[in-house]
Amino acid sequence: MSYFEDMEVGQRRDLGSFVFTAELIKAFAAQFDPQPFHLDEEEGRKSLFGGLTASGWHIASVWMKLAVAAGQREAADALARGEKPAAWGPSPGFRDLRWLKPVLAGDTVSYASEVCSLKASRSRPEWGIMQMRNTGTNQRDELVFSFLGAVFIRRRNPLD
Amino acid sequence: MSYFEDMEVGQRRDLGSFVFTAELIKAFAAQFDPQPFHLDEEEGRKSLFGGLTASGWHIASVWMKLAVAAGQREAADALARGEKPAAWGPSPGFRDLRWLKPVLAGDTVSYASEVCSLKASRSRPEWGIMQMRNTGTNQRDELVFSFLGAVFIRRRNPLD
Repeated sequence: MSYFEDMEVGQRRDLGSFVFTAELIKAFAAQFDPQPFHLDEEEGRKSLFGGLTASGWHIASVWMKLAVAAGQREAADALARGEKPAAWGPSPGFRDLRWLKPVLAGDTVSYASEVCSLKASRSRPEWGIMQMRNTGTNQRDELVFSFLGAVFIRRRNPLD
Repeated sequence: MSYFEDMEVGQRRDLGSFVFTAELIKAFAAQFDPQPFHLDEEEGRKSLFGGLTASGWHIASVWMKLAVAAGQREAADALARGEKPAAWGPSPGFRDLRWLKPVLAGDTVSYASEVCSLKASRSRPEWGIMQMRNTGTNQRDELVFSFLGAVFIRRRNPLD
């Protein structure tokens, strides 16, 4: 993929998978979300979650990690083909983030991203705005995470 | 604060402030968001952001960190007064997260949380759902971060 004009609604990218080990769950929680059910197996078992469970912000941050890595792989592939890589800019935010099921220690989450809408940016004629539905699915094919993200993406042909 | 029934729409809590140093911005980015403008001052200056800028997920994760710390302080205060502390559960997700302005190295963000709505949970009669507008404001009183969060909070009097 490359510029705004190259994107199509419905395009789906698999971003890769991540294993939420107990060690990684506790390390993120100690830094950013030190609630008992994110720090301790026994507290997790006593909680609504039923086990040591990853912070929702950890689940979201791993999405970002895999999205950046996928973008870097795609950029390298584009360069290898002699094409210009995608030119992405900042995100203005997102909508409707859902943590649909707990992610427990040992779970593997596979992330994907699908283009939902494409529109011009009024304030920045050299950029477009792409909306994506981003998802995380566990090893039992259960949807655990979902949000509508938006990102600026450079236009090949800026608007007048 | 304590149970669902004790909460009121419009209640505002200051959650505290956080200084986004260059070192912390780069450490988060290296783990979860290794884009050039989050890792390197010069790349930041060349970007739309105009300087080394914190990952949006870092800004959100620090909100969580300060919200947990505020909750723990409030729980300790409640216990010290001989009252039961708040009983919060998991979050089902949130809406309309906005990164409104970049958070640059050296910026201080002050976070706050205001109750927007309170409703019963149909599926879990012993819990209510509280919606909060969460914000981050920089040292120039500019709103940099905002989202509508939701959290389960235990009812004193479960619904039949």
